Amino acid sequence: MELLGLEVKIDAAGNLRAVYSGASLEAPRLLIGSHLDTVPNAGAYDGVLGVVLGVALLEVLDGRRLPFRIEIVGFSEEEGVRFGIPFIGSRALVGDVDEALLANQDAQGVSVRQAIRNFGLDASNIPQAALKPDSLAYLEFHIEQGPVLEQMGRPLGAVEAIAGQSRLEFTFVGRANHAGTTPMHLRYDAMAGAAEWITEVERRAQNVSQLVATVGRIEATPGATNVVAGEVRLSLDVRHGEDEVRLSMVRHLAAEAENIARKRGLSVQNRTLLAQPAVKMDAVLVGQIEQAIRKTGAEPRRMVSGAGHDAMIMARKIPSAMIFLRTPGGVSHDPAEAVAVGDVAKAIACGMHLLDQLAACSEFVSGIRRA
Amino acid sequence: MELLGLEVKIDAAGNLRAVYSGASLEAPRLLIGSHLDTVPNAGAYDGVLGVVLGVALLEVLDGRRLPFRIEIVGFSEEEGVRFGIPFIGSRALVGDVDEALLANQDAQGVSVRQAIRNFGLDASNIPQAALKPDSLAYLEFHIEQGPVLEQMGRPLGAVEAIAGQSRLEFTFVGRANHAGTTPMHLRYDAMAGAAEWITEVERRAQNVSQLVATVGRIEATPGATNVVAGEVRLSLDVRHGEDEVRLSMVRHLAAEAENIARKRGLSVQNRTLLAQPAVKMDAVLVGQIEQAIRKTGAEPRRMVSGAGHDAMIMARKIPSAMIFLRTPGGVSHDPAEAVAVGDVAKAIACGMHLLDQLAACSEFVSGIRRA
Repeated sequence: MELLGLEVKIDAAGNLRAVYSGASLEAPRLLIGSHLDTVPNAGAYDGVLGVVLGVALLEVLDGRRLPFRIEIVGFSEEEGVRFGIPFIGSRALVGDVDEALLANQDAQGVSVRQAIRNFGLDASNIPQAALKPDSLAYLEFHIEQGPVLEQMGRPLGAVEAIAGQSRLEFTFVGRANHAGTTPMHLRYDAMAGAAEWITEVERRAQNVSQLVATVGRIEATPGATNVVAGEVRLSLDVRHGEDEVRLSMVRHLAAEAENIARKRGLSVQNRTLLAQPAVKMDAVLVGQIEQAIRKTGAEPRRMVSGAGHDAMIMARKIPSAMIFLRTPGGVSHDPAEAVAVGDVAKAIACGMHLLDQLAACSEFVSGIRRA
Repeated sequence: MELLGLEVKIDAAGNLRAVYSGASLEAPRLLIGSHLDTVPNAGAYDGVLGVVLGVALLEVLDGRRLPFRIEIVGFSEEEGVRFGIPFIGSRALVGDVDEALLANQDAQGVSVRQAIRNFGLDASNIPQAALKPDSLAYLEFHIEQGPVLEQMGRPLGAVEAIAGQSRLEFTFVGRANHAGTTPMHLRYDAMAGAAEWITEVERRAQNVSQLVATVGRIEATPGATNVVAGEVRLSLDVRHGEDEVRLSMVRHLAAEAENIARKRGLSVQNRTLLAQPAVKMDAVLVGQIEQAIRKTGAEPRRMVSGAGHDAMIMARKIPSAMIFLRTPGGVSHDPAEAVAVGDVAKAIACGMHLLDQLAACSEFVSGIRRA
């Protein structure tokens, strides 16, 4: 960004920020960014590609001025690996970093506040990192981290929502019995009940468009080869772009667990560990993105992001939207994470069309849509 | 037994043994017994009730002499808790305690040989614990440790076989994927495949009389709420009184696992950890036991024992059979383990009828059936 003549700053939350001037000094700003961090043993594209693509757009603009300034943001700490708290960088921009967050400690007992100080910054200046009132919107390029675009043969997707997410724990309780002496018809087998339910979770999820439901964790007690399981505890993760669809599925799956348990003389309980609503991306921006993708010669795919992103946080304050890039094999958070050079070129072309469209849209530039 | 005037000995394998004289000095012997040990946190009846019932029969005989002697055996170490090797006591009687067995160590590094020495015995005398050539047969009373007799409202059962047992480990391998970004139709979910197979294991086992099949242990990798399971490892325990029925079921379940894996784009492997053939009880003795049960006014139930017993070991050398006593709730290896006083009275009555029947059977007494 310095090579492009921009003044680069690091705000008190560790976000890297630089502003590309607009046609006038009073021009409002469009934010483009993503996160700089990723997980351990990860790949080269998750997050940082979105920051680099923002810079690439400035490079293509090559001094051309638009009726809005462009602020590039490289967010810090999106993954939440160190402190177990994701989105610290973007939360600073929407004014959601409080004392409780700063007091959280990493595995070595270092607090967020201290980590910021060790990095040479002062957390008490975080309020100054907040979005300026002239912020029009937020755009984020990101690898899909899933197989949908690849499967459909499309390079780019327009994200219309970040899926809401429910996480629950289900516990089926039966009776632990001797696997040799207890006939099949006299068993209260928590494992068989849980297995029947898992197949139902899959079957029902397959019948609802764009919904995903996953049982990824299971634990049987006593967990011995020669003992009928007396208790099975398992996780349920349900995601969808529409909260009512997600919550209705959770209710159905809980009722199905009850039915299966009743039929088998088992009992079942569940508790909700997380219930995070879906976040809609800005409909006008999503439409503009689709149009821009089409101009690159590609067919856009409207899609729901099953994973969380900084755009989900930014959407609390300003119109936000995301462009997904096709991810080979859907592989992410892995050294094999990749992206095709041609797809990156399409993303840049899409971004340029989008900037021109927005520049031509007086409603957008006038900030009528501003929060 | 000393109160009954018997001379009680402890053989070199720690078995408690005493002989009740017969009508003549040359009378052959009938062995009646069970094991003295049980598992930690167990009940009061598993094993020892069978020894006490043998003594009770001598008490009822009250000096009456039969054409055979009766040797009561209280077997040591049937459960295999300490050394992981079951049936050490009965194996001594059939000559199956070798150096390798004696060298096995407990969790503290004490060998079987040393443990025997610490108890005041000498393992080198174990060969003298072997069955004498005049041994006619072995009878064992034991609690059922299952719910079948209770369910049928019958106090006593005639065990016609000890079930053969197969233990296998199955591993379904798919692809670990992000639970949020991987649509249902693009998953290779090892958990869903394993669950479908578990329901098949149950369904098929329910359709084969007296067969039991159990998945009691399961482990999913990576085992996280938000990750589609890439691998699921689980146990299979199959038991039946007929080896061909059991092995055929194992083949069918392995083929079904293959079918499910193929359909889902998963792979599956299995390995056999144990394949123990069924042991038939002596048909003549089983018939005599049924007759004796009927004489008590109860309807006998022919049944297969799903658990192993000393009778399974003794059957290698002499005709052997077992009488099961109804077990309330099927509960065993638990402090709640119980037996009804009335059922114990029936068992004693059954035992007396059986002794009289055998005494009246010249073929039995002459030892024509002796091994």
